[in-house]
Amino acid sequence: MNPKENRDLLEAFSQGDRRTLSRLISIVENAESGAGPLLREIYPKTGNAFRLGVTGPPGAGKSTLIDALVKRIRLRKQKVGVVAVDPSSPFTGGALLGDRVRITATEPDPGFFFRSMATRGSLGGLAATASEVSDLFDAYGMDFVILETVGVGQIELDVVAVSECTVVVLAPESGDSVQAMKAGLMEIGDVFVLNKSDREGSDRAAKDVQSALSLRPSSPSSWRPPVVRAVASEGRGVDELLEAIGRFREHQSQSGEGRERRRRVLREKIREATERILRQRLWRDAGGRELDEAARIALEKHGNPYELAAQLASRLASNGRLNPASEEGSR
Amino acid sequence: MNPKENRDLLEAFSQGDRRTLSRLISIVENAESGAGPLLREIYPKTGNAFRLGVTGPPGAGKSTLIDALVKRIRLRKQKVGVVAVDPSSPFTGGALLGDRVRITATEPDPGFFFRSMATRGSLGGLAATASEVSDLFDAYGMDFVILETVGVGQIELDVVAVSECTVVVLAPESGDSVQAMKAGLMEIGDVFVLNKSDREGSDRAAKDVQSALSLRPSSPSSWRPPVVRAVASEGRGVDELLEAIGRFREHQSQSGEGRERRRRVLREKIREATERILRQRLWRDAGGRELDEAARIALEKHGNPYELAAQLASRLASNGRLNPASEEGSR
Repeated sequence: MNPKENRDLLEAFSQGDRRTLSRLISIVENAESGAGPLLREIYPKTGNAFRLGVTGPPGAGKSTLIDALVKRIRLRKQKVGVVAVDPSSPFTGGALLGDRVRITATEPDPGFFFRSMATRGSLGGLAATASEVSDLFDAYGMDFVILETVGVGQIELDVVAVSECTVVVLAPESGDSVQAMKAGLMEIGDVFVLNKSDREGSDRAAKDVQSALSLRPSSPSSWRPPVVRAVASEGRGVDELLEAIGRFREHQSQSGEGRERRRRVLREKIREATERILRQRLWRDAGGRELDEAARIALEKHGNPYELAAQLASRLASNGRLNPASEEGSR
Repeated sequence: MNPKENRDLLEAFSQGDRRTLSRLISIVENAESGAGPLLREIYPKTGNAFRLGVTGPPGAGKSTLIDALVKRIRLRKQKVGVVAVDPSSPFTGGALLGDRVRITATEPDPGFFFRSMATRGSLGGLAATASEVSDLFDAYGMDFVILETVGVGQIELDVVAVSECTVVVLAPESGDSVQAMKAGLMEIGDVFVLNKSDREGSDRAAKDVQSALSLRPSSPSSWRPPVVRAVASEGRGVDELLEAIGRFREHQSQSGEGRERRRRVLREKIREATERILRQRLWRDAGGRELDEAARIALEKHGNPYELAAQLASRLASNGRLNPASEEGSR
């Protein structure tokens, strides 16, 4: 991307052009060479949006709850962006996201933007990318960014870790609290939602969640995660959820814990961005050729790939090869 | 780990001690500092094992099929190691792997080793780690290494990409060929298994798979993936599967495609190992402190994390800081 294009995109973005937002998200998602400079440019406009992570087992009704949340937020005339992260397969969650995209497309609302990210799990950067897309939404003027995950694997835990408040959604039948504990959900949730609370077994399920939560280490001053009972499909419990989130924000702000959480997120963001800049520089031009050559030696002479890697690392790190050149600041 | 410990471990490993194998796998899995030197040491002993990747949608019966394969391989007096990769949650696949581990524990067989890997999805290194654990199995003397995945997401595709032959398992009810195509399975499979072939709809399902496969681009000399019908729970079709795998090996060897595939796998292995060595050097000592400081500036002065990352990248890459020091060759 040349500087002129870059300027035009940023200009259109700052005027609220939706297509440009979409284009910038793609640039960031695909880690195109202009992504670094773009993110750097838009960053000063961030700081307004509250970032909410929503996770929980498949079938708990996360999407329905998020749809209800979005409606409520829009009724308040606030703007919201949703990043749905699906590192799993079309066999489990893909169809669901497909439906959501369709709904979004038929109801264009300038204060709402939905984006799903499904294919970058292999690069280990899904959480980092979700965080960067959140920055775009934030700079675009959103009041809320909702990070939605489809499953509850490690990647999903990483994704919600970049949020300011993590909502864990459970349902009476979607897995008991033992399962949720195994998945590490009881430790990471700031607010719990027991969705489908009109179903049989929901009283018992609520008690199970409460008792699982009572095992969390806590001090008198620490936050005690509330369990909000909801029926998202009817919009019940959504106000209570927003209210609980508000109380959590208040607590985080007063206790200083929110600040510490932001520091950790920023640290990770800087770490990831630094590694990506260096990784790009590593394999461009001569680095790529040397890698090919090392692979040839490993194949044809049964060279030891681990030894070749150690040699390559030392060679590439020396002679200022990782110093910035023409691509200064790109990632 | 000191050199003496290292030597003792390698000595016990080369004598076939199972506990040591288990210990080395843990070292590699957790990317402990001694992992690089260990892998380098054992690499010359690799080259014997054939690496088979097995993937497919949940419910297709992959584990049952693999159990049957393992039995058949053991009957031939050959040794086999299974690496089961589960980047998803306990809600979907964890219980399954749990069962498998239990079965394995009650039937110790010196020619069989099972290991599940479930928690490293976030580091983007699950495929690389699976490949390294395969190297350990190979050096340990296994004739087969089976890389088993639980789902069919991007990570799973990456895992089977390090194998020499990819088996895709489908079942009549587990998802039609359209779903499999969406997941990219039709393109990556070298041999297809239609499991549960005694069930209703299996004739139709076999035809669907065949017609989906006919869409693959091919030339007269290219491999035409067979569809093996099986009932893994009764051991039916397992010999046919092994036979089809044998034919694929033959084709790969004669066409030179196997060689090109090994080259790609080796290139990735070297790339990953190089990046890990440099990543470790990057954040040790002063690098870690500078990262902390950058996070502080981002938090307290609303410094731009993307700009801070670009500065950090340049600073860390200069002055030979990424050159090997005391930890030469560790990863």
